[in-house]
Amino acid sequence: MSRFHELLAELSTLLGATQVLTDQDLSAWEWDWRKRYRGRALAVVRPASTQEVAAVVKACAQHGVAVVPQGGNTGLVGGGVPDESGQQVVLSLSRMRKVRALDTANLTMTVDAGVILAQAQAAAAEAGLLFPLSLAAEGSCTIGGNLATNAGGTQVLRYGNARELCLGLEVVTAQGEVWEGLSGLRKDNTGYDLRDLFVGSEGTLGVITGATLKLFPAPAAKVTALAACQTIDQTVALLHRARQHLDAQLTGFEIMAEAALQLVAQHFPALSQPLPPAPWCVLLEASGSEAACRLAMEQVLESALEAEEIHDAALADSLGHAKAMWHLRESIPLAQSQDGLNIKHDVSLPVSAIPAFVRSMGQRLSDALPGVRLITFGHLGDGNLHYNVQAPVGQEAAAFLAQHEAPINAWVYDEIMQLGGSFSAEHGIGALKREDLATRKSAVAVDMMRAIKRALDPHGILNPGKML
Amino acid sequence: MSRFHELLAELSTLLGATQVLTDQDLSAWEWDWRKRYRGRALAVVRPASTQEVAAVVKACAQHGVAVVPQGGNTGLVGGGVPDESGQQVVLSLSRMRKVRALDTANLTMTVDAGVILAQAQAAAAEAGLLFPLSLAAEGSCTIGGNLATNAGGTQVLRYGNARELCLGLEVVTAQGEVWEGLSGLRKDNTGYDLRDLFVGSEGTLGVITGATLKLFPAPAAKVTALAACQTIDQTVALLHRARQHLDAQLTGFEIMAEAALQLVAQHFPALSQPLPPAPWCVLLEASGSEAACRLAMEQVLESALEAEEIHDAALADSLGHAKAMWHLRESIPLAQSQDGLNIKHDVSLPVSAIPAFVRSMGQRLSDALPGVRLITFGHLGDGNLHYNVQAPVGQEAAAFLAQHEAPINAWVYDEIMQLGGSFSAEHGIGALKREDLATRKSAVAVDMMRAIKRALDPHGILNPGKML
Repeated sequence: MSRFHELLAELSTLLGATQVLTDQDLSAWEWDWRKRYRGRALAVVRPASTQEVAAVVKACAQHGVAVVPQGGNTGLVGGGVPDESGQQVVLSLSRMRKVRALDTANLTMTVDAGVILAQAQAAAAEAGLLFPLSLAAEGSCTIGGNLATNAGGTQVLRYGNARELCLGLEVVTAQGEVWEGLSGLRKDNTGYDLRDLFVGSEGTLGVITGATLKLFPAPAAKVTALAACQTIDQTVALLHRARQHLDAQLTGFEIMAEAALQLVAQHFPALSQPLPPAPWCVLLEASGSEAACRLAMEQVLESALEAEEIHDAALADSLGHAKAMWHLRESIPLAQSQDGLNIKHDVSLPVSAIPAFVRSMGQRLSDALPGVRLITFGHLGDGNLHYNVQAPVGQEAAAFLAQHEAPINAWVYDEIMQLGGSFSAEHGIGALKREDLATRKSAVAVDMMRAIKRALDPHGILNPGKML
Repeated sequence: MSRFHELLAELSTLLGATQVLTDQDLSAWEWDWRKRYRGRALAVVRPASTQEVAAVVKACAQHGVAVVPQGGNTGLVGGGVPDESGQQVVLSLSRMRKVRALDTANLTMTVDAGVILAQAQAAAAEAGLLFPLSLAAEGSCTIGGNLATNAGGTQVLRYGNARELCLGLEVVTAQGEVWEGLSGLRKDNTGYDLRDLFVGSEGTLGVITGATLKLFPAPAAKVTALAACQTIDQTVALLHRARQHLDAQLTGFEIMAEAALQLVAQHFPALSQPLPPAPWCVLLEASGSEAACRLAMEQVLESALEAEEIHDAALADSLGHAKAMWHLRESIPLAQSQDGLNIKHDVSLPVSAIPAFVRSMGQRLSDALPGVRLITFGHLGDGNLHYNVQAPVGQEAAAFLAQHEAPINAWVYDEIMQLGGSFSAEHGIGALKREDLATRKSAVAVDMMRAIKRALDPHGILNPGKML
């Protein structure tokens, strides 16, 4: 065990003993957010600068000890926690929380990787600008983690994923070198796109220590509406119509199945539901000038009513009303938790393939498991469904999960892949879907990924056991 | 020489002898568009399908013969032509010209790599949609080449570079395998981002054979204007103002220095210039609904006049008038050609750094070379300047170029790098800027690029001598 002792002594010298945690309770870093993975760390280290991160990685590499980078530890696939060996070092970026620069003329912001997403949003807002990335964990997730997992969220339709919001990166390599790739440039064609290789690589190719992010003018107003559809096909037709009228002003297009809003009504009866129950409810959001957005949204809803794509609609007439509509949407996962364990799928499809998937898989599941509740909701505008399967009312959730999770996953993912979709739209691979990646991606792609991993991290120091 | 004869025989068997060109005049494939590089090819082969491309690459790899992928051969850095050895095979994608699918619900189009950009634009337009990539060579450049070089152009401000317009790729690897990465998904986090690694890799990592592209609703109208500024700082302030008012409706923001429009007036006196000469002329374009864009554009111009950011403006009142404004902008490179050889730089900077660069480099060049003409123009909204240096009136252009090109390049690129810019914004590296990449990019970045190249193309079969 002497190499571990030597390493720990070296890390204490580099960072100070108080930043190398070994003896206390480390479960906050060792357990993943969903409590599916309970690892055991050799140590948790908390460097305060890029140079310290580089020194940590270099020391670990010299001693052949693996490094698990960790941001806010809010990931959903177990990608940021150590394995059970007790031989991996968790490298927490939590002390690197500086907004380094904000350039209003260039519409960019450069931040440390440990900056909390909400902190980045606030820094942009203070300058009268918008950093649009927005997701449930924004109060505790970090920019480094958002980029390492290419986070999605609710504003992707207009602004793209975390990948599209990143212009440059600073990364510590597996050799402990610093790649100074921070850049606020919109156009730069000088060699391979290393930035996008690190974005979404889940800490397996390098440790992101800083990023230059895109900012946008803050929209003057947001206009929000709900609409009721009879069929999933109608929701797709409505999306097409909304795009025609609103184009880049369309910033949100979320769908919610009847069963999802029923669950919300059951567990949160105080929440007002503006529309009577319908097979599908759509939440639309437009951002821009108040008058133009309101006019265009009215045109969308009126023409959709006329075309019988929707049969009912409600336009928010105040900020509070709009917030209540979003609150309904955001309450679905909470209502699911209240209701008990369930089988979750974060999948994406070409939008045109969604109706066929929803119909055929719904039929198949209902036939096989009478009374099963399909809590389908998500970002239709991005082709991203949270396709969650809840036990029939009255059945024991844990038993249902234990019995049906594996076969239902196989059905869903098989069908998704057949339709040109993805078995991980915005959550990533981590430890949870590693086997799916190995078996469901093409062998040519997996071979290239492994070759890249060997090329940049030949000794497998960075986050081993994740993704590949 | 027997391995070459064996290979040629094998290629003839694979493709048919008529698609393996060796004896005739091959200069159309051997010379680059600017006629700076004159290579000599062992053969030009013209496969008609992805499977044929794979077979060609596999055969070449087996015989250790290099492959130079070529699209429309309109590149500006000599990246698509063979070297002078006569031992490289040019793989032309020109027979792969099918639009494979167009999905209006998903807003995507899947095309062969050899589809001409204008053909892709037309296919989208026929479906009432927009494929926004637009650049001077669009009548002959191919989608494969656009993606291999991550082309930019005039609509980047709103729609991004070729990279941002690509959702999925089909690629033949250096081993002659086919990576079937075509995908119309907006969200897919399943492993490393291979797509963006191939985009911009200039044929050195794989041969792009097909792509799935993003489409957009066609804007109802475009509103175009010219504005006159006294200083470069005012153009940046005007950009900020236009973004505030127009946000995503701002689709064009081009600047033209006085010397650039003087050159146009001199060589194309029939073109009307709507504004009197001014140090800087800005072309603004807004796309969306006619009424909203016109109103917002008027607000931009009126408030900018009031704030004394501009001192004159003209709003196009017809499509013809708008086209004439764009025609002025597009005539600058032509006027330069008419005037004689000049020293070209395709550079980018953070927008906030552009005034300092333009002032200090302008001063330095004017001091060193009295009477020198700075034909500065370009996509200010993207931070991309075409910073071209023309001999003083009356001086012999070729002699000026021969004497001053190397030192002026060094001045410009040194300063650009110091300010966080790029020495190749949208043209790429190819053969022309290979030395600049090796010396001006960080060693850490270049080492990673070389490691990736070795990992994916260990025998250096694909486009050797380009980029790295």
